Amino acid sequence: MRPQDLIEKKRDGHELTRDEIAFLIRGYTRDEIPDYQMAAWLMAGFLRGLSEAETVALVEEMLYSGDVLTHDHVPLPKVDKHSTGGVGDKTSIVIAPIAAACGVAVPMISGRALAHTGGTLDKLESIPGFRTNLSLAEFKDVLARCGVALIGQTKEIAPADRKLYALRDLTATVPFRPFICASIMSKKMAEGIDGLVLDVKTGNGAFMKSFDDSRLLAEALAAIGRRMGKGVTALITDMNQPLGRWVGNAVETFESIEILQGKRLDEDFGKLCLELAAHMLLVGGVETDLELARQRSLETIHSGAAMEKLREVIAAQDGDARVCDNPKLLPQATHQQTIKAARSGFVAGIETDEIGRIVMDWGGGRRRLEDKIDYAVALHIHAKLGDEVKAGDALVTAHFNDESKLAEMQARILAAYRIEEAQSQPEPLVKAIV
Amino acid sequence: MRPQDLIEKKRDGHELTRDEIAFLIRGYTRDEIPDYQMAAWLMAGFLRGLSEAETVALVEEMLYSGDVLTHDHVPLPKVDKHSTGGVGDKTSIVIAPIAAACGVAVPMISGRALAHTGGTLDKLESIPGFRTNLSLAEFKDVLARCGVALIGQTKEIAPADRKLYALRDLTATVPFRPFICASIMSKKMAEGIDGLVLDVKTGNGAFMKSFDDSRLLAEALAAIGRRMGKGVTALITDMNQPLGRWVGNAVETFESIEILQGKRLDEDFGKLCLELAAHMLLVGGVETDLELARQRSLETIHSGAAMEKLREVIAAQDGDARVCDNPKLLPQATHQQTIKAARSGFVAGIETDEIGRIVMDWGGGRRRLEDKIDYAVALHIHAKLGDEVKAGDALVTAHFNDESKLAEMQARILAAYRIEEAQSQPEPLVKAIV
Repeated sequence: MRPQDLIEKKRDGHELTRDEIAFLIRGYTRDEIPDYQMAAWLMAGFLRGLSEAETVALVEEMLYSGDVLTHDHVPLPKVDKHSTGGVGDKTSIVIAPIAAACGVAVPMISGRALAHTGGTLDKLESIPGFRTNLSLAEFKDVLARCGVALIGQTKEIAPADRKLYALRDLTATVPFRPFICASIMSKKMAEGIDGLVLDVKTGNGAFMKSFDDSRLLAEALAAIGRRMGKGVTALITDMNQPLGRWVGNAVETFESIEILQGKRLDEDFGKLCLELAAHMLLVGGVETDLELARQRSLETIHSGAAMEKLREVIAAQDGDARVCDNPKLLPQATHQQTIKAARSGFVAGIETDEIGRIVMDWGGGRRRLEDKIDYAVALHIHAKLGDEVKAGDALVTAHFNDESKLAEMQARILAAYRIEEAQSQPEPLVKAIV
Repeated sequence: MRPQDLIEKKRDGHELTRDEIAFLIRGYTRDEIPDYQMAAWLMAGFLRGLSEAETVALVEEMLYSGDVLTHDHVPLPKVDKHSTGGVGDKTSIVIAPIAAACGVAVPMISGRALAHTGGTLDKLESIPGFRTNLSLAEFKDVLARCGVALIGQTKEIAPADRKLYALRDLTATVPFRPFICASIMSKKMAEGIDGLVLDVKTGNGAFMKSFDDSRLLAEALAAIGRRMGKGVTALITDMNQPLGRWVGNAVETFESIEILQGKRLDEDFGKLCLELAAHMLLVGGVETDLELARQRSLETIHSGAAMEKLREVIAAQDGDARVCDNPKLLPQATHQQTIKAARSGFVAGIETDEIGRIVMDWGGGRRRLEDKIDYAVALHIHAKLGDEVKAGDALVTAHFNDESKLAEMQARILAAYRIEEAQSQPEPLVKAIV
């Protein structure tokens, strides 16, 4: 078998066999197939399409390119949640402790902030001392002790994905559903889980802007997971405004703590957490009725059991668990500025990806994976979609360290808000369940 | 400008500007753009297509990636001929001296054998002492003295093409008309010519098997050349059997000499040489009537003027010009074997590319550019299309050094011939002129 023949086969629109996909992915992972041949194959696949069988082969080859964990030492169902990425999306920090408090083990391997979206790892690392770079042995140990462990991708997990993602990023082959599926599912299936809840974001703050694209992605991800013998539920949820009241790293960690303290459970972020946690309980089989699963999730908040789980896992991963009571222990910005509405009306639109980019450009995110993050940068979102505002009312309060960008950022925040006279109907938070 | 944005633009089917093509080709030639990004762009171009404007931009950027020769020291029209490659195609060795003898200077940069096709350079190098690796200064000097000079591609000429061709070869992006045009025309335009005669081969021994593909290529090449201000004539000629009576390196050189001695001018090879030479005189402006140009070409053979030009250029390039009188000075194979017809009838088909591969596999060609060539390997083609043969008549006599392959090669030669009871109409030699 020669790589150029498999490139030609895909170039001409033919389906590759399981063995051919294996030859490509194994050869590429071992550095036997050069980047340029894989790049040509990726582009041919992007433009000619991949069948479901090819996509599953890709997932499995990427999965078995590295370690596939097992947690037989933890006699509980293992379930994770994966979000396709949004702005202000910090649900993991809330729902992992809730699920663990209900007897569902959560071996969670999360990502970092990239482009306009935030990443759970960066939010967790804003906690003084918190280590996300546990060894796999430590990861399994923390999972056994706490029922939840929170780390980043390691070099042992799906190395083919890491190599391929870097190549896709530089060859304009990222936004293609089969590749997205393979990247997500190869990493998730390596965690050693029995089931997975997917939060597929849709809207102007998501990578998939249209509902149809999001639905196709959700269906494809769920089909692959089920074909691999896992319980999978995919929720398609609204990302047409930042989730919750805060965007930034340290502040999102504290906002998650506030939910576990029982605050603002009736707003979008609190509601979504309870919904996702409930589906984790169903997928894990500890509840069979959605309404009962919601109630049980809520009880872990009221009883303090979920908060206790969060304290446990923070401490187990060398973090300062006192942040759960004292937000001042998290990084604080030196400056604040409130951006006010220029006219009266109703908030009719928020350019959510722009809000994410503003945080990134102010130092709170990453343009490239190697960029350093300023954990303290934060936007406090006072006005959400549908809210009535009067000229002079606060839209957003910015917390920042770099004063030189203030004028630019104020203008960008103001421009990201669309205020109209008529109040429009808000989108439902959960748009579909696959 | 970032390469990934230009990959994305082509991926999505948009036309790149002149500046964008320049950015890509210049960056790639200078090693600033990596192979993997160029590979993704090549595949996107292959599958999405390139406009004529993009193709011309590509030709010009590849052309100006290196030296573009001028020959102001030679006060003659400069014309070259380029063939898209065939089996037994040795016309260059005949027509360059004819044109030079008529006052058309021929600064010819030729290629090497590759896959099933032969290359003029290898045929010339079978002449003892003949150097094709002249410096550009030597090339210009030989051209001034002889009116013809025959070399191979140098590192100064179109370096972007050399780099891109190697990449295309390994990424299944070779057989795409705009890339083929750019590769051919960037090298030819760098020779410092005023005009070009193209011999676009069509048939089972050509890279373009179908007449329609050959016509489209001929039209594209001619359009590009004319857009760049050159006189261009493209002939589409038959390649459904080996051209002439011999296939191999040394023997093709001698067969060329035989044509210049006036032998077999009524057969396909002799006729095509006179036709191509006549078009070179027209493109060079030294004749304006095709029939007169044919006659003048023929006169250079009868007068011995063309043969004298060949002797001159062989000597000028350090070769032993005595080969023009004594073919025994060329490499000779130690063994001969005649392959005979198994049944009586008419030759209805010859798998021409297979004939080329047989010579290659017996040592007379190259699978890879770095392979060494056995110049003596030869097939003497006794039976051509339309010929009547009786069972036991000679089809081909093989001349070879490697006896171990004889049985296999005999079988392959026999299988390459199709003999039928009815005599079919032969294809015209020149099928169209563009």
